[in-house]
Amino acid sequence: MKQTLSFETLRERIEQIFLRAGMNAVQAGALSRAIAAGERDGCKSHGIYRIEGVLRTLKAGKVSGTAEPQIVGGDDGAIVRVDARGGFSNPAFELGVPVLAERAKRLGLAALVVNDCTHFAALWPEVEAVTEHGLAAMVMCPSYATVAPAGGTRPLLGTNPFAFGWPRPGRAPYVFDFATSVAARGEIELHRRAGNQLPEGWAIDTDGQPTTDPEAALAGAMLPFGGHKGSAISTMIELLAGIMIGDLTSPEVLDFLGTTTLAPFHGELVIALSPEKFAAGRSGDPFARAELLFEAIQGQGARLPSQRRFAAREKSLADGITLSADEAAQLDRWLRLGLDAVA
Amino acid sequence: MKQTLSFETLRERIEQIFLRAGMNAVQAGALSRAIAAGERDGCKSHGIYRIEGVLRTLKAGKVSGTAEPQIVGGDDGAIVRVDARGGFSNPAFELGVPVLAERAKRLGLAALVVNDCTHFAALWPEVEAVTEHGLAAMVMCPSYATVAPAGGTRPLLGTNPFAFGWPRPGRAPYVFDFATSVAARGEIELHRRAGNQLPEGWAIDTDGQPTTDPEAALAGAMLPFGGHKGSAISTMIELLAGIMIGDLTSPEVLDFLGTTTLAPFHGELVIALSPEKFAAGRSGDPFARAELLFEAIQGQGARLPSQRRFAAREKSLADGITLSADEAAQLDRWLRLGLDAVA
Repeated sequence: MKQTLSFETLRERIEQIFLRAGMNAVQAGALSRAIAAGERDGCKSHGIYRIEGVLRTLKAGKVSGTAEPQIVGGDDGAIVRVDARGGFSNPAFELGVPVLAERAKRLGLAALVVNDCTHFAALWPEVEAVTEHGLAAMVMCPSYATVAPAGGTRPLLGTNPFAFGWPRPGRAPYVFDFATSVAARGEIELHRRAGNQLPEGWAIDTDGQPTTDPEAALAGAMLPFGGHKGSAISTMIELLAGIMIGDLTSPEVLDFLGTTTLAPFHGELVIALSPEKFAAGRSGDPFARAELLFEAIQGQGARLPSQRRFAAREKSLADGITLSADEAAQLDRWLRLGLDAVA
Repeated sequence: MKQTLSFETLRERIEQIFLRAGMNAVQAGALSRAIAAGERDGCKSHGIYRIEGVLRTLKAGKVSGTAEPQIVGGDDGAIVRVDARGGFSNPAFELGVPVLAERAKRLGLAALVVNDCTHFAALWPEVEAVTEHGLAAMVMCPSYATVAPAGGTRPLLGTNPFAFGWPRPGRAPYVFDFATSVAARGEIELHRRAGNQLPEGWAIDTDGQPTTDPEAALAGAMLPFGGHKGSAISTMIELLAGIMIGDLTSPEVLDFLGTTTLAPFHGELVIALSPEKFAAGRSGDPFARAELLFEAIQGQGARLPSQRRFAAREKSLADGITLSADEAAQLDRWLRLGLDAVA
């Protein structure tokens, strides 16, 4: 039977599942917030669907469910570093973000580095958390090698998401969060299951030739969005959010895990910028001026990113979050069986 | 008759032209370095071809040829701000970059804001100058409203270039620098002159419909690269490098100039990051690890960006820079006539 739950009730049920699976409170709490937020925003691919992957990665011993993230290095200039200690990125990020915000407001900009974490979620929760402090944010991380560089023939880069947010006082922020591959790997999998061909330009086969066959694409490599430009941005993400912060690149992640069915282990880079500090002494209020830009975009019929997500959020907060009978049963099963629920 | 000149001889001739046109030494010097570098690197679109636009913008009174850029605001955390005082971006950038480098090395990351400047050049000279300090760099700026947001119908965004660099000890850096539009405006103009149709996906007409007619495209709007993803990045550039730094957005630049035939007046944002600071305490040397990534990219037949430019540079530095008879005559004409050479 379908169930309609409040955000907090759903979040608690997810938290119970993770506690039952042996996670500590800080890991289970942060993860439950991120997954319930995905479900609330109508992002089914980042909602309770993700619980299975979390449990599988936990069971495979590739993430610590009991890690206590730690801020390391003291007041080291504009860099705030959190050691996730092999746990999930979410509690590490939550620990670091108030320090990041203070540092960015004082210095104008600052970076949060999360090291040694497993990241399985979208980046928009991170971006939104930074914008709540009145700061703009860029967030990026590698994933695992499934994307060929433009002009290349084999998987090397990750789907490497890039996300950005700008605070909009009194309303949901301007947020985008996208894979730097043309399509997400999950989309190719969906085409495969449905027996559909892929659109052209999504992937190449094991010989490096363009393919529209999902099986051949999964065996071959995905392509970056926007040709050599997207490929360059994806490479930048490997450099900044992998190599520069002393964490794994996408090929190294794949070597470490040996599979793409577990959540990637790596690092994450967040850059926070203070519009108030940057605009100080200049004419015009940056937040008011940004609204004019957004109005001009929407005034010609174009959409701002994340609007569908924010509409779903509004509806969920007003009417509750509805789970299908299957989904509700799945939650019960995970709660009952813990790690025994996954292979 | 064709002429072959050394970099320095070409640079001095360009400098003389600008001094003859009434510019002061700091403006003429920095501009001559940027333009000679474009010619040296085989970037004809950013070489001596740009002199005419500089002179035209100067004559129209939309840029100051005698401005003395100034660092403002003292030691303001991680933000270094240079007021270009209505001059060109290049001398302002040159003034700020050593301060930026010191700040980024001390704090881990820092930003250079250039305000109230005219920017006519590529961004790779800026990126390369930062990498010479052993720092990674992101550089961006708005331009003028000639690009429709994805899903839109009218010009609003600029071609908004985004550039990135990573230092490679002992060799030319990893550098990319691209317009966030599918094509540069100049490429559409070249198609028009040649009487060729445009590839699909480059532009829309004044009704917001896709067009392959260069005239209709120039009257209508260009499109961002990579659909909504490129559009989002271009919007981010308006927000960070226009609004956040208290400078003009692309639609405001177009209002200010009233034309796209003059160089855009606006600001510029440079973010410098110290791999040494970011990687401190982590295992692995970031510069050595980056080389492995570059080898893996090239090892599968893909190219690193800017390699053609670096090859041209090597050749120019070894054999000199060859100008056609027309180009050499044009340099003489500009030197003789100064601002009278342009309409």
